[in-house]
Amino acid sequence: MSRRGVAILGSTGSIGTTALRVLERQRERFRVAALTAFSNSALLAEQAERFAPDFVGLVRPGAADDARERWGCGERCLVEAATRDGVEIVLNAVVGAAGLDATLAALEHGRRVALANKESLVMGGDLVRAAARRGGGELVPVDSEHSAILQCIAGRPAMEVRRLVLTASGGPFRRWTREQLERATLADALQHPTWQMGRKITVDSATLANKALEVIEAHFLFDVPYDRIEVVVHPQSVVHSFVEFIDGSVLAQLGVPSMELPVLYALTFPDRVSDTGVPPFDPVELSPLTFETVRRDDFPALSLGVQAGRAGGAAPAVFNAANEAAVALFLDGVIAFGDIPRAIESALARHGGTDGGSREAILSADALARRHVQELF
Amino acid sequence: MSRRGVAILGSTGSIGTTALRVLERQRERFRVAALTAFSNSALLAEQAERFAPDFVGLVRPGAADDARERWGCGERCLVEAATRDGVEIVLNAVVGAAGLDATLAALEHGRRVALANKESLVMGGDLVRAAARRGGGELVPVDSEHSAILQCIAGRPAMEVRRLVLTASGGPFRRWTREQLERATLADALQHPTWQMGRKITVDSATLANKALEVIEAHFLFDVPYDRIEVVVHPQSVVHSFVEFIDGSVLAQLGVPSMELPVLYALTFPDRVSDTGVPPFDPVELSPLTFETVRRDDFPALSLGVQAGRAGGAAPAVFNAANEAAVALFLDGVIAFGDIPRAIESALARHGGTDGGSREAILSADALARRHVQELF
Repeated sequence: MSRRGVAILGSTGSIGTTALRVLERQRERFRVAALTAFSNSALLAEQAERFAPDFVGLVRPGAADDARERWGCGERCLVEAATRDGVEIVLNAVVGAAGLDATLAALEHGRRVALANKESLVMGGDLVRAAARRGGGELVPVDSEHSAILQCIAGRPAMEVRRLVLTASGGPFRRWTREQLERATLADALQHPTWQMGRKITVDSATLANKALEVIEAHFLFDVPYDRIEVVVHPQSVVHSFVEFIDGSVLAQLGVPSMELPVLYALTFPDRVSDTGVPPFDPVELSPLTFETVRRDDFPALSLGVQAGRAGGAAPAVFNAANEAAVALFLDGVIAFGDIPRAIESALARHGGTDGGSREAILSADALARRHVQELF
Repeated sequence: MSRRGVAILGSTGSIGTTALRVLERQRERFRVAALTAFSNSALLAEQAERFAPDFVGLVRPGAADDARERWGCGERCLVEAATRDGVEIVLNAVVGAAGLDATLAALEHGRRVALANKESLVMGGDLVRAAARRGGGELVPVDSEHSAILQCIAGRPAMEVRRLVLTASGGPFRRWTREQLERATLADALQHPTWQMGRKITVDSATLANKALEVIEAHFLFDVPYDRIEVVVHPQSVVHSFVEFIDGSVLAQLGVPSMELPVLYALTFPDRVSDTGVPPFDPVELSPLTFETVRRDDFPALSLGVQAGRAGGAAPAVFNAANEAAVALFLDGVIAFGDIPRAIESALARHGGTDGGSREAILSADALARRHVQELF
């Protein structure tokens, strides 16, 4: 059996390193064909030595770095890795808007895209779907919620799905009052109760902007209208999402929080292979499982994002860019936690009606939204 | 679109009347082709008038009953209804061992059997599977647990299934001490916390004999060995069962306790159709969901049944017959609740090694076990 070639875009990040652990166990089925990283040349060098990929790309090498000569290729690293011969599956684990072009290129070239880069669909959902149709590529989610939904749908037609219910841990501020939220510090926001993730996505989990991005992603992945996608708070993060079918039946996918399974499933879908990455399931140990209504008024980023999704056009891209810019300012200590949704709202009010019919229009809306947020403070 | 003909065996019982409610809503897709009942001629007459089936059969008409002439056909009612022309799906909701022949006949005739009669598989698992292979018939479960498992497996091959975890409500005696259990009355046993069912199955839920029957049924339905079928107590009866796959992922099917969905799914499988029988899913309202270890030592019928399953041959039939006989004595006020597992254990010790290679051998073991229990008290 020939091994399927996998390109990992963003190999030194949280998802990238998780994927390499999975691929190390699954060496009989997959080989690492390409690796790209943003700037962590030391870890990339270790990975390159260990997995001997055909291609290694470093987007932004340090000035005094000898990796610049060997691997430096700037932004075009991503598209090059995604479209090389011998790459059948592209794990797009790039953080942020930079992932869009690689997703589009991989789908145009008929590849499977295992998508951890939410922004590809949030910014360019229609473009991404059109690219998949044109090129014959296939989009498979890596997010735990969307992987759960994919597993529950299990090949049944979209017309049999009545409703998607995404679970949200509620983040570190689930029980904080609105007043406390205003004064939440960076250290507070980085204390995620159930998932170990990167800083940007951890803050997004605290504002629930992350859940808005996931609702938009679910809309495009599963072709379900926004009024049939709901969010419920589930502090244990054991149920990764629910699917309600037209006959009233509900399926859920469960497990100890771990990204290894969604990564593996995105590689093997629709098949499953034997793997030891997830500890055996013990419902008694995980009991009780609780569910709560989302406090939408206190976490306004969620509704802002879903409204942007409904509005369509470039509005989701504006939401995403404004959020990225605001989170960066929060991570730099420039703005308060409560300023993040205010910045998003302001950017959407100003630029939410922008056209989103092309990659250029979307990138332009993205730039306008970022500038808008930077000029707010 | 031509409507598929459904025969309901046991139409006046709990599952039968549920099925008729479902079929009334789904008249565009299905028609009631045949109805049989054991002895409730009044309700059967109402059903016959309402659904106008081609065939109506009454197994045991009362002496002074004019239904005797119109519908009386004794035990052969069941096989006749199951194998008539125009019957595509046989819902076997007969209680007890009497259901086996109808299941075998329907499968030999290439019909789909929607199986609510656990005893068919428990007594004659190997025979039933052989009949399905020979006749091209298809077995689809109606039990909520097995329907849940079928929905979770969703057509994936058995080799991808690592483990089945059946949920058990724990019955009315979940928190009773062993001493209290000895003195449990019939009225206590009939107070099931979450499901409205017939008397026999309600007592089986209290002893957990029911769960043993379900483990054996799951073994034959899904071709999973006994050491990979587990039981967990879940008092809310919202999660109807779990399936763990070889990659460590777990799927579950959930919903408010209602038999309408499993009945409908057994008719439409693998498709789903729009239906209103199940109230909309609200995880917040159903929260919390809890899971507990089964108290196997205090509910010995469970382990006795699973051991009988592992032993194979006629042992599961002996377990089932001894349990039926003991429950009948308990329902008649002859024996105590704690005598039920003792009677089963005694019957298995005496007749558990009986050959089970043919229908006759199984029915003989069944008769021996019943006599054994009756003579114990």
